[in-house]
Amino acid sequence: MTTPYLTALSRIAIATVSILSVASCAPVADDVNAATKQKDAANVSAQPSAAAPKNIIMVIADGMGPAYVSAYRYFMDNPDTEAVETTVFDGILVGTVRTYPHQQSGVVTDSAASATAMSTGVKSYNGAVGMGVDKQPLETVLHRAHKLGLKTGLAVTSHIVHATPASYMVANEARGNYAQIADSFYDDRINGEHLADIMLGAGWGHFIREDRNLVELFQADGYQYIDSYDQLSSIDPSVPVLGLFGDGSLPWALDDIDPTRLHTLTKAIVPYLAADTQDSGYFLLLEASQVDWAGHGNDIASAMAEMHDLAKTMEYLVDYVEAHPDTLVILTADHSTGGLTIGAVSDYRWDASYIQNFKKSVPTIAANMLTETDKGQYVSDMFGFALNQQEIDSLDVINADMNPRAVQAILKDIINTRTNTGWTTSGHTAVDVDMFAFGPSAQVFAGNQNNTDIAEKIFTLLDQAHKK
Amino acid sequence: MTTPYLTALSRIAIATVSILSVASCAPVADDVNAATKQKDAANVSAQPSAAAPKNIIMVIADGMGPAYVSAYRYFMDNPDTEAVETTVFDGILVGTVRTYPHQQSGVVTDSAASATAMSTGVKSYNGAVGMGVDKQPLETVLHRAHKLGLKTGLAVTSHIVHATPASYMVANEARGNYAQIADSFYDDRINGEHLADIMLGAGWGHFIREDRNLVELFQADGYQYIDSYDQLSSIDPSVPVLGLFGDGSLPWALDDIDPTRLHTLTKAIVPYLAADTQDSGYFLLLEASQVDWAGHGNDIASAMAEMHDLAKTMEYLVDYVEAHPDTLVILTADHSTGGLTIGAVSDYRWDASYIQNFKKSVPTIAANMLTETDKGQYVSDMFGFALNQQEIDSLDVINADMNPRAVQAILKDIINTRTNTGWTTSGHTAVDVDMFAFGPSAQVFAGNQNNTDIAEKIFTLLDQAHKK
Repeated sequence: MTTPYLTALSRIAIATVSILSVASCAPVADDVNAATKQKDAANVSAQPSAAAPKNIIMVIADGMGPAYVSAYRYFMDNPDTEAVETTVFDGILVGTVRTYPHQQSGVVTDSAASATAMSTGVKSYNGAVGMGVDKQPLETVLHRAHKLGLKTGLAVTSHIVHATPASYMVANEARGNYAQIADSFYDDRINGEHLADIMLGAGWGHFIREDRNLVELFQADGYQYIDSYDQLSSIDPSVPVLGLFGDGSLPWALDDIDPTRLHTLTKAIVPYLAADTQDSGYFLLLEASQVDWAGHGNDIASAMAEMHDLAKTMEYLVDYVEAHPDTLVILTADHSTGGLTIGAVSDYRWDASYIQNFKKSVPTIAANMLTETDKGQYVSDMFGFALNQQEIDSLDVINADMNPRAVQAILKDIINTRTNTGWTTSGHTAVDVDMFAFGPSAQVFAGNQNNTDIAEKIFTLLDQAHKK
Repeated sequence: MTTPYLTALSRIAIATVSILSVASCAPVADDVNAATKQKDAANVSAQPSAAAPKNIIMVIADGMGPAYVSAYRYFMDNPDTEAVETTVFDGILVGTVRTYPHQQSGVVTDSAASATAMSTGVKSYNGAVGMGVDKQPLETVLHRAHKLGLKTGLAVTSHIVHATPASYMVANEARGNYAQIADSFYDDRINGEHLADIMLGAGWGHFIREDRNLVELFQADGYQYIDSYDQLSSIDPSVPVLGLFGDGSLPWALDDIDPTRLHTLTKAIVPYLAADTQDSGYFLLLEASQVDWAGHGNDIASAMAEMHDLAKTMEYLVDYVEAHPDTLVILTADHSTGGLTIGAVSDYRWDASYIQNFKKSVPTIAANMLTETDKGQYVSDMFGFALNQQEIDSLDVINADMNPRAVQAILKDIINTRTNTGWTTSGHTAVDVDMFAFGPSAQVFAGNQNNTDIAEKIFTLLDQAHKK
């Protein structure tokens, strides 16, 4: 499927649809009842292989419920214009996703069960990595892509054996078995080959262990190993790559030397995979892992900073697909985290101006302030706005013996009150998440779908484009 | 545009799109950047008049944020099956809507500003009815429909001069000016004619006043007046109709003699409007008004009962459009209310089983229990599950002198704890709401759009189908 052909075809499709009159994505009069049933996979099958993209980039924003996407628009709004400017997300939304796990875990999923649903098409229990309730390993879309001869890769801001990337790569009955999962990253093979051509994220502790040094093993198998962002410019497309840039995770966007490091990893990994001399196509998993962690911490400042890194990543991918129309990009979340609401406590107000000038993340500010003589001034400097006396007084109870989370909670109370941000939990909620897609066959992800449907659609598209 | 033609055309459209390969609704490779800009109205304009529906039914679920739609699915789930059954909403979702009001009111809208945006295409201040920040009356889509010769009607579960219906009918600088607004319902004219052919809902106090009896005035102008549901079977399509079935509102779904009364009103008003001997088409506004009120009250039991009435209404409309493919149905919300979250307080759980057997609404149970000797037993009977001792003890403080809201709060604490439902406010939040559409031109509502775009699209579709 050549680029000119696809582009031409896309123009035909657009023209034809604009001439004709009835919804193609939206249910139409004479099939609206059918549309109320789940038949997404069938819809995909109806697509001829010409529709299938050569390359698929799956982006997961962990914990990004609908409120995060809306909040980011208001966080980015230019107050000097009457209009509220749209974001990259607004232009690519196509539907929503049902995230519930297997019945035995209720209706609120964790990241492992949801990632497993999106990678394998099977609902599983919370904690499951790449396996169903029967605890048998399942084929993932990344495995299928590898079997079909595509290059595979992943780039995340957590450590690379965390629940989401792990569920695309390997199988384990418990997401917390990080050493086992890291071993599987090395030991598992497809047709005698390693699972991924390139892996970028954090994970020193899991890969460089006293019992086993997986970095050296990967290097012995020909992998180029890098451990700093600046080495991304020197990666060689002709050899596989392992890049670990942190231990448990990359730093918070607000603390990182590169505040848009997922964007940076993406700008390196996409050309790397596209440089394949076989031109066999690629499957890439990207995860904005720490949107979820900001949600767990009820930390709206970090949530918006992580969303900004994701937005920059998506803007790059939108431009990339414009130049490479044989690439499909899908973005969704595995669940929503924190019960975030834009506005709270009966006040019809949400004011992002108080989180637009943060110098560091709340956890870092909370740790650093302990040694500051003028805590109020330090926090004001780090937050980017002057604390009032009541807020300064609220810092008096803080001392070095205090639980770090308790210190952070005091700072977050100030921020949540100033911005009027609501939270209902330190865990997850079951609201449907947004679905975004662009590129060939993007329309098969339109409407409301199950998270398992996403895997089914990707399996179908991979087979259509690459099955010999 | 005859039905056979449209139906045939729709089949062609479906076939053509399924043969071709690229997203029509979803942004595609070579226009994805353009898609990030707002050009929805342009998209509509690109649709030839053949695409435009003869009839448009606009449904507004007041306060129905994304969490309500997801929660209703889990509320309705059959626990005896492993699958979570989909709802009518899942089959008709096409996108999302940005709800923010005019800049001077911040980013959290009220129902008046949002309804005005959806009825006129103009962002206004919170409280504005049918006018912009310049306080000049604006043309609404209902006005345009009337001018173009269509029949017009509305059916709501609040009183009919409440913010949402009022913003489609008249203009007033303050939503609370109910007497003025009711007067405008009678006094305003289009081409010397009353604004609507049929109006169904509540509003005795606003229409039958000491200073002015608007019911008698409407009757003098030839309107058939009815004041009980059973009279709906006797309405005469050849004369205009005013139906008022309550004072401030219809009862809560959980208290009403007809728990799905919006569904009942809809089954009467749609055939009434369709019976037009001129066959000139119609514009109908339906509002599930009390989803919002349940949200304001942080009352999940009533929220789900109101959602059920809406679901029955939408199921009827899905069947109706199957039989009448010249009718477009649009459903969205004006904003989200209450900061509802499905799961809360760090517990990965939401259990709707405790709200599936309610006998009455919480406000009614709270009022009735005051005269009960065994309050615990009475509440257990009304809730449909046995209160535990701690819950029964929590009722001890309740007495007849207590503020009714305080009594209700004690009961809601029991329900929110049992179901693990989260709320962050008694007001509204700014999360984008879901967009649903089916029927001809439903696809122009696909993706993310501004609430003002909805009016622009409807204006365009009305002109395309009906402008001489």
